[in-house]
Amino acid sequence: MTPNAIKRIGIISRPRRADLAAVLPALLRWLKERGIEARFDEESASSLEGAAASQALPRETIAQSSDLLLVLGGDGTLLAAARVAAARGIPILPVNLGSLGFLTSFTAADLYPALEDALSGRCSISERAMLSAELHRGGRVIDKRNVLNEAVVNKGALARMIELELRIDADFVCRYRVDGLIVATPTGSTAYSLSAGGPIVHPSVQSIIITPICPHTLSDRPIIVADTSQVEAVLLGESESVFLTLDGQKGILMQSGDQVRLARAQEKLKLIQPPRKSYFEILRSKLKWGEA
Amino acid sequence: MTPNAIKRIGIISRPRRADLAAVLPALLRWLKERGIEARFDEESASSLEGAAASQALPRETIAQSSDLLLVLGGDGTLLAAARVAAARGIPILPVNLGSLGFLTSFTAADLYPALEDALSGRCSISERAMLSAELHRGGRVIDKRNVLNEAVVNKGALARMIELELRIDADFVCRYRVDGLIVATPTGSTAYSLSAGGPIVHPSVQSIIITPICPHTLSDRPIIVADTSQVEAVLLGESESVFLTLDGQKGILMQSGDQVRLARAQEKLKLIQPPRKSYFEILRSKLKWGEA
Amino acid sequence: MTPNAIKRIGIISRPRRADLAAVLPALLRWLKERGIEARFDEESASSLEGAAASQALPRETIAQSSDLLLVLGGDGTLLAAARVAAARGIPILPVNLGSLGFLTSFTAADLYPALEDALSGRCSISERAMLSAELHRGGRVIDKRNVLNEAVVNKGALARMIELELRIDADFVCRYRVDGLIVATPTGSTAYSLSAGGPIVHPSVQSIIITPICPHTLSDRPIIVADTSQVEAVLLGESESVFLTLDGQKGILMQSGDQVRLARAQEKLKLIQPPRKSYFEILRSKLKWGEA
Amino acid sequence: MTPNAIKRIGIISRPRRADLAAVLPALLRWLKERGIEARFDEESASSLEGAAASQALPRETIAQSSDLLLVLGGDGTLLAAARVAAARGIPILPVNLGSLGFLTSFTAADLYPALEDALSGRCSISERAMLSAELHRGGRVIDKRNVLNEAVVNKGALARMIELELRIDADFVCRYRVDGLIVATPTGSTAYSLSAGGPIVHPSVQSIIITPICPHTLSDRPIIVADTSQVEAVLLGESESVFLTLDGQKGILMQSGDQVRLARAQEKLKLIQPPRKSYFEILRSKLKWGEA
Repeated sequence: MTPNAIKRIGIISRPRRADLAAVLPALLRWLKERGIEARFDEESASSLEGAAASQALPRETIAQSSDLLLVLGGDGTLLAAARVAAARGIPILPVNLGSLGFLTSFTAADLYPALEDALSGRCSISERAMLSAELHRGGRVIDKRNVLNEAVVNKGALARMIELELRIDADFVCRYRVDGLIVATPTGSTAYSLSAGGPIVHPSVQSIIITPICPHTLSDRPIIVADTSQVEAVLLGESESVFLTLDGQKGILMQSGDQVRLARAQEKLKLIQPPRKSYFEILRSKLKWGEA
Repeated sequence: MTPNAIKRIGIISRPRRADLAAVLPALLRWLKERGIEARFDEESASSLEGAAASQALPRETIAQSSDLLLVLGGDGTLLAAARVAAARGIPILPVNLGSLGFLTSFTAADLYPALEDALSGRCSISERAMLSAELHRGGRVIDKRNVLNEAVVNKGALARMIELELRIDADFVCRYRVDGLIVATPTGSTAYSLSAGGPIVHPSVQSIIITPICPHTLSDRPIIVADTSQVEAVLLGESESVFLTLDGQKGILMQSGDQVRLARAQEKLKLIQPPRKSYFEILRSKLKWGEA
Repeated sequence: MTPNAIKRIGIISRPRRADLAAVLPALLRWLKERGIEARFDEESASSLEGAAASQALPRETIAQSSDLLLVLGGDGTLLAAARVAAARGIPILPVNLGSLGFLTSFTAADLYPALEDALSGRCSISERAMLSAELHRGGRVIDKRNVLNEAVVNKGALARMIELELRIDADFVCRYRVDGLIVATPTGSTAYSLSAGGPIVHPSVQSIIITPICPHTLSDRPIIVADTSQVEAVLLGESESVFLTLDGQKGILMQSGDQVRLARAQEKLKLIQPPRKSYFEILRSKLKWGEA
Repeated sequence: MTPNAIKRIGIISRPRRADLAAVLPALLRWLKERGIEARFDEESASSLEGAAASQALPRETIAQSSDLLLVLGGDGTLLAAARVAAARGIPILPVNLGSLGFLTSFTAADLYPALEDALSGRCSISERAMLSAELHRGGRVIDKRNVLNEAVVNKGALARMIELELRIDADFVCRYRVDGLIVATPTGSTAYSLSAGGPIVHPSVQSIIITPICPHTLSDRPIIVADTSQVEAVLLGESESVFLTLDGQKGILMQSGDQVRLARAQEKLKLIQPPRKSYFEILRSKLKWGEA
């Protein structure tokens, strides 16, 4: 980034985080002193007092008029912010007020140094691929959204296993009898896909990861295809309670015959990262490697 | 069994199975010719015509006045019948009208030979341990049921992971962050637990199998304890949509703080089995072993 | 144990452990002051000076004339001591001079309190099942040894996969194409079997755990059978470099057609354990559970 | 390929295959009739009679003077041929005289139609990435070879676990305590890596797959990095019997401190494939998917 290119910063926070009240007023002063315009969402506003509390803006509006999004929260907050930031092409500076996340790798103590680095253009940016997820029903697109981590098709708690047909570039791959199916980006490989038995995929591998959840056929294994592929999962049979969940943010009730189509999204997320911390360093600390 | 001890046979069927209409009338005649009283449930009746169609009885009533339960259906039908049969101490003869199940190891072609063996006392019976499952809330028992396969605590499709504390004989074992938790009998080890990554446990191993579903901590592994142990799973945190499911038959909405307690049930299921077919032979054919 | 029943203590140590020199002379004095006769093996002697250094005895001899074996070392040392202790029926007090093991759950700091508890009969003893492992070739028993953890059949580094036939109580179970096969006790379930994907089995579950190593058939899963079963693995095909390894202590070159037979051993190991530490507490600290 | 560009065909066979004698003489006549020069290796010659039997050539020589290599054998024979074919840039037509392999996807019945397609330029070619594997010791390259499937570091049958340090692009990733480590191409993802728990990676994903064998730290998972990365595994500790195996063809004894370096090879293998058979169709038939 060119130094001084950042004149307006949008702030997106995690709802109900007590720590926020301790951080936000000082942060707004700090930005004002440097001539940076700040705008913030409803959740941020809820931790403010006085006039400021009423100046909240919708997240889309914030993204449209900002040069950088500052996310104060965990990986969940970042996933919500990622969509609007990527659509606008602006970078995200993710600061975790609680424990370190896979994506939110700055801590509260890093807040001001990281902001200064970002303002002076000294920061390092990791471009993260996203997936475009579409739900097709009867020839029409019912829903459409970009995801940074994953799209998940899964059954409700009381439903029995579901049947899905997987197609890659229109080729039939297999019929799954599963609790669910995860289609993830490399960024999402260390989230839900990992819990379901998927591998760790470095963000630079141009790929889509397909991980079954509780497969009834024991030979089912995670499958990784190039991100130039189109992945399609078709819901078979008569399941009453099957949902498509996008980045854990939104759930849509599916019907028999519904097709979920996934392909590389045009937009990428620009994620600001600690300059001297490798991908594997974060991985090690999250997975507790090397402590044995 | 003593020859001729079986004078009354109860018939429990799987709902909506077209094949039933082809089997049931002839079966009723066959039993009548041999002086065996037959009674049947609603599902069986629905495939009959004329007066017989109105003679259906509740499953509990059938079990109470029968010397043997004939189950026509798959593993699901058998799970429903198992509870009433075990409570009464009568054996089940399981006949699968469709494809072979782990539990229903007689096919339609075996029906009459198997019945004749059962009537003459030549059949082999496998005693299967069951678990007593209790849901405790605020010091009271909210629900209670014996299961042949497993009790499952799991989250709804839209919920995030849940937190559970596992205690064995009142000792704290670990805190799970998972999609769910399966507590299974050896009989249930080849059902849902297997899909979630659990081992195959022979019915003669006196044990309880605890298998996490999609554990977020990678080091979580299935745990097997003696069936003299009491296993307790406590739901922590504030999850809106968590269910306890018993043998896939009944689902109960759980609340934070709820405790699920599992211990060996007093009753065992008496399951009639093909005399010349080993446990491993059924396993091999279901898991497609040895075909590589 | 009856108080004062312990008059003679045998000491078995891990070779080349520098810490030993710091511990052993003081320990010998401590025992002498209490009128306890001490005897020790070659490895222990190597850390002593003067006359004591030449008084080492073979481990079998030590076991035969001791009332308790004190093992100073890790799980490996304990495995070697277990065989001789179990054969004689005397308990083992395992003290780990390095990091805690699954089996060696006393630390150096616990040494004297644990000894005092043992001498006064206040200690708690966990009885651990062992397996009798026999290697049969051409109708003869080539080798025979009791194991506390496991028997492993595996291929050399340069060999290709091996083929094994598994039989349980003479029933054919399956044909494995694997790198190897582990047959473990519950005690051994947290050792090599765990690395190969096996479950955690509590020592009180009367069972034998069969875990394939790198199975080429994806549907192969660990199998658990009752410890009243006889497990037999037959080496098929023409493999040049296949070994039977018993408790990681001894390796025997196998030939095509060799049968490894495993059954519950008559002897059990009496393992002294910290009185207030549950099995799951040790598990938690070794597997780093609950730290996430 | 341009029609008629193939004037010379090299034949590489699997040693000791009885079926070869039934195929080879007719094949040589068939080629001669079409004016194609044929040359063959020692193993092929051993199934011929008369003068032909003495005309065998070394595989390197055959590759150097051929426009196409015809491989008659299984995946093992193909791995051996891949190296010489890729070095020369000529395609391989793989025909499996026994059961279908992942790589050798033509059967004996396909031999002549496939050859005709190849000669007329109608065939479809899959370009497969290879890895360059180097063994470094004391600053020198001890061995170097391209692999189509994988490089494996693993311990001998009698050795205990080994310790390896993994570095990616010189960044420290983790320290493994394992039986071994597999570094595979996408093509190799369905070979040994799959048995060790690795995912299925489509050949078009530009990546390197790192799969631990029997990791003692339960949180170790397969890692996938971009094929622009350099992967380095360093052998730590004092292991007596550790080997580097390249494509299952060659084993080299390793010493403590040895570094195995892997990176994308410059050469790719041109593999002729059945035109109407997708990658997933072969996968399905090998993994027995969809038969449940």
